[in-house]
Amino acid sequence: MSKLISGFSKLTKDEKITWLTENYFHNQSETKAIIKQYWNDNKDLQQLHDDFIENTISNFYMPFGIAPNFVINNRTYVIPMVVEESSVVAAASLVGKFWSTRGGFKTMVIGTTKIGQVHFMYAGDKTEIETYFNKNKTELFAATASITKNMEKRGGGILDIKLVDKTDKLENYYQLHVTFETKDSMGANFINSCLEAIAKKFEKDDIEIVMSILSNYVPECVVRAEVSCKIEELGGENPQKFAEKFYQAVKIAEIEPYRAVTHNKGIMNGVDAVVLATGNDFRAVEAGAHAYASRSGQYSSLSHCSIDDGVFKFWIEIPLALGTVGGLTGLHPLAKLSLEMLQKPSARTLMQVMAAAGLAQNFAALRALTTKGIQHGHMKMHLQNILNQFNATEEEKEIVTAFFDKKTVTHSAVVEKIDALRKPNINWIDFLDKNLVSSKLYKIDKNSKPIFGKMNGQQMIEHLSFLLQISNGKVAADYYVSDEKSARRKPFLNTEGELQVGFKAPLLSEEPNDLKFNSVGEAINDLFIQIDNFKTHFETANAENHPFFGELDYAYWQKFHVKHFTHHFKQFGLV
Amino acid sequence: MSKLISGFSKLTKDEKITWLTENYFHNQSETKAIIKQYWNDNKDLQQLHDDFIENTISNFYMPFGIAPNFVINNRTYVIPMVVEESSVVAAASLVGKFWSTRGGFKTMVIGTTKIGQVHFMYAGDKTEIETYFNKNKTELFAATASITKNMEKRGGGILDIKLVDKTDKLENYYQLHVTFETKDSMGANFINSCLEAIAKKFEKDDIEIVMSILSNYVPECVVRAEVSCKIEELGGENPQKFAEKFYQAVKIAEIEPYRAVTHNKGIMNGVDAVVLATGNDFRAVEAGAHAYASRSGQYSSLSHCSIDDGVFKFWIEIPLALGTVGGLTGLHPLAKLSLEMLQKPSARTLMQVMAAAGLAQNFAALRALTTKGIQHGHMKMHLQNILNQFNATEEEKEIVTAFFDKKTVTHSAVVEKIDALRKPNINWIDFLDKNLVSSKLYKIDKNSKPIFGKMNGQQMIEHLSFLLQISNGKVAADYYVSDEKSARRKPFLNTEGELQVGFKAPLLSEEPNDLKFNSVGEAINDLFIQIDNFKTHFETANAENHPFFGELDYAYWQKFHVKHFTHHFKQFGLV
Repeated sequence: MSKLISGFSKLTKDEKITWLTENYFHNQSETKAIIKQYWNDNKDLQQLHDDFIENTISNFYMPFGIAPNFVINNRTYVIPMVVEESSVVAAASLVGKFWSTRGGFKTMVIGTTKIGQVHFMYAGDKTEIETYFNKNKTELFAATASITKNMEKRGGGILDIKLVDKTDKLENYYQLHVTFETKDSMGANFINSCLEAIAKKFEKDDIEIVMSILSNYVPECVVRAEVSCKIEELGGENPQKFAEKFYQAVKIAEIEPYRAVTHNKGIMNGVDAVVLATGNDFRAVEAGAHAYASRSGQYSSLSHCSIDDGVFKFWIEIPLALGTVGGLTGLHPLAKLSLEMLQKPSARTLMQVMAAAGLAQNFAALRALTTKGIQHGHMKMHLQNILNQFNATEEEKEIVTAFFDKKTVTHSAVVEKIDALRKPNINWIDFLDKNLVSSKLYKIDKNSKPIFGKMNGQQMIEHLSFLLQISNGKVAADYYVSDEKSARRKPFLNTEGELQVGFKAPLLSEEPNDLKFNSVGEAINDLFIQIDNFKTHFETANAENHPFFGELDYAYWQKFHVKHFTHHFKQFGLV
Repeated sequence: MSKLISGFSKLTKDEKITWLTENYFHNQSETKAIIKQYWNDNKDLQQLHDDFIENTISNFYMPFGIAPNFVINNRTYVIPMVVEESSVVAAASLVGKFWSTRGGFKTMVIGTTKIGQVHFMYAGDKTEIETYFNKNKTELFAATASITKNMEKRGGGILDIKLVDKTDKLENYYQLHVTFETKDSMGANFINSCLEAIAKKFEKDDIEIVMSILSNYVPECVVRAEVSCKIEELGGENPQKFAEKFYQAVKIAEIEPYRAVTHNKGIMNGVDAVVLATGNDFRAVEAGAHAYASRSGQYSSLSHCSIDDGVFKFWIEIPLALGTVGGLTGLHPLAKLSLEMLQKPSARTLMQVMAAAGLAQNFAALRALTTKGIQHGHMKMHLQNILNQFNATEEEKEIVTAFFDKKTVTHSAVVEKIDALRKPNINWIDFLDKNLVSSKLYKIDKNSKPIFGKMNGQQMIEHLSFLLQISNGKVAADYYVSDEKSARRKPFLNTEGELQVGFKAPLLSEEPNDLKFNSVGEAINDLFIQIDNFKTHFETANAENHPFFGELDYAYWQKFHVKHFTHHFKQFGLV
């Protein structure tokens, strides 16, 4: 069956899902159930979300958390954060609170202009194109009048149009480099519409427009956020030492790209969480921020630190092209709610909130890294995630969390611990310990009834003796277990598994044997003799044949008898 | 009231939401309802999602779409995409299908090694630190044995540890630069745990560890994806022209950072959608990709194009550090489902699928940009989003979409169009048109009953005459409307608004006046006389006082009478 399909986009949502599950999933009904358990009961609301993009089959849940206690320019905020990574919201909350008692975040917008370009090819005379541009510049503005009318009412619009000669980089390549102010809208549609109108007006026979498009590189749309306090106000055991190590860590991120990339990634953990929560475009913000980080020619840190006159200062400058109107901001009910939570900010205010969230995240990461290490916190969360994966109970969580308090968390170690917890607690009977064995068996008399099986108490004791005799080479072997079977069966003796109820080696009869001794006492006496014989027999012998497991050495026979004694002691409720 | 709070993380989810809405929202019950309408009915499932991060209050829906028809190395995929931006999934689907009939995507993994670093300060002799490192290198490996055990079973582990002298960049600064292979896991926890163990072992009195942390810069964890075909196979009107313009657009992105950033942003639209859908970390992938794009010292395009011997070739090389086990991949039910949709890929396979998705997105953007412009498609989606925002009906959508077929879509223009559509269709009565007025009034007799109000038909006609007489200066003005009130009220007459039912000017009595004429016919006759008088009166008069709107000139009086006639004609079902 070909898994290619025509006209897919025209199918209904249900038809799409049916085609998908039939062609790409084994369990179709289960898959459909998973997809549909995420649908909203409110059909209109679901339709709204379905219409945001194409070929929608479900809603991907991203956790929506909140970080309170952010004081930014003396105003208190709760910051909405949408992020799938654990620790990010917790870190933001802690750092928000930390700085709320140390003056809070001080932020300012450095610039808000955005860039768009008409890229074109022109092979003619350079003076001519300049003349043509200068002569028509007013016309280019005029060509956008119907588009810019409303933006101008809000104080935005086209700020400037420049002709740029790029022929030194690429033959015949020029640009119209256009600067925009888009106020509270991110402005992508506005900028692109203006550029296309300009290009249409500008185009002529010897000018070939290649493309007209906004730039996500926005080095003039930048915001600054800062925290500072006296070093002694940083608190902790040794604030001076803390400040110095923190400063070193920032310096390293400034000069070492391998570190800078991760340093900035941590900043973006905070920034993107707010970008997502407010219905903005994180790919645009990411591209702009990282390109800005590389503007000097070497990728570097977006944040900086200074220690002067006993004052610790930590700040960030980051380009953020955002909107608080238009796009998803007014369409996604939770994006609208996020903006209301932020007290309906302008785009300028939102830039400042995001910069603070990014700086807070960076502060948290550097504080952890330079003190107890990043894994301390991460591992706590990692552990909880694994526990959830295994549907651990609250009690199991408590035990395992305590167990790993000082130990390295690895997936396999946690799984092992969970498995161990869940294993039935078996009191293995050390059959070589005659005191233990007799302390258990004194409860048995001839008439003791088993919990399972057909033997009475004495028959059971004589049965244990019989198996010991086999291991002692005292019973003729009229059975044979192939090496292949033996190899497959023996590993069980190394596990924590118990012998199963109803298990019976082939040579044993269906009904219990007749009693060999006159009393339970005599039977126990014989059992102890066989135990002694077992030890002495293997002083010389290498191995004896087991009717089910095949040839076993001393260690394996011991393992067998432990399981065998435990099994039969359980049969009479002795363990 | 202070909006700071202590112990917030310890509150229950409901308590958190209550505090949030009380302190940051006006309408608390409505806000709570919005937050809760996104909760899942299945409490266990909701708990799972709540536990992914901290302070969770709801699930932020991201649309989960699918792009079929991706042929990658001769295998067919449906690609799961989580993205809030419209057009991305549609573009992926179109391009996937386009290349499926032209050989599909050819992809290969170039490398999979990852980097981590122990950053430390050492002020001593350089030879000594080298000797110390070389002597202890084996011990450093050994220190991670318990952590690497399982990774090594899967074929991964630590590949190398190097001492790097960075003192030329920062005084006393050195690194242990560690190379890892983490197979199908993203490996962040593994790498960080190893580094911390190495640092602990390596640390001594004169070595100060600043921090130990993986790098998200992964220039050795790179994948390549490519599409190619003969130029004539590209189709369209002029495939040669298309190929050349496409090639130019890629060249521009290679040499112009303003364009390169947006070019790569488009690639990441495709990449991140798969990153999110599979439970990977988009901040890590973004940081790695953009830093890689800036590695030459100038930010540049991640994709490239060639035209040789009539063959069009388009390819990308992008670093992607991903996991298909661990983290959210195994925890989020829809991330698990995405991986199953992709036929349970290894991390290497997932790298290739993502690179193909990124290349497809880039192809779609460049194709649109270099042909009809990016806004053509964007605007269609933009329009639909605005229509959804205004809860447009299917009929309204059809009309507005047709209207904007060739027009520039701006938010305000669309809103204007929707408003116009929704305005009640009022048949304003031109009272100066006596033919129209009489054609309506002939239906009236003395006993006609009103739809609202107390007048009968003849009383209504006499009432219209009375207001005309006021405008004609025939009624003594025993009322006064202040200029301030008049200024506030008059603008209404310029709107499309109708007089409201129940509206009554102050001078009118509560009950209808006694009849003045003997018949409806006589009343109509008088009405026509007053209409004629109205026209002639204002040949000399400038204004007359209206009992509610104040001083009105001829134009305003006309506007009033149009509304007034319309209002009373409606009262008797005449319009």
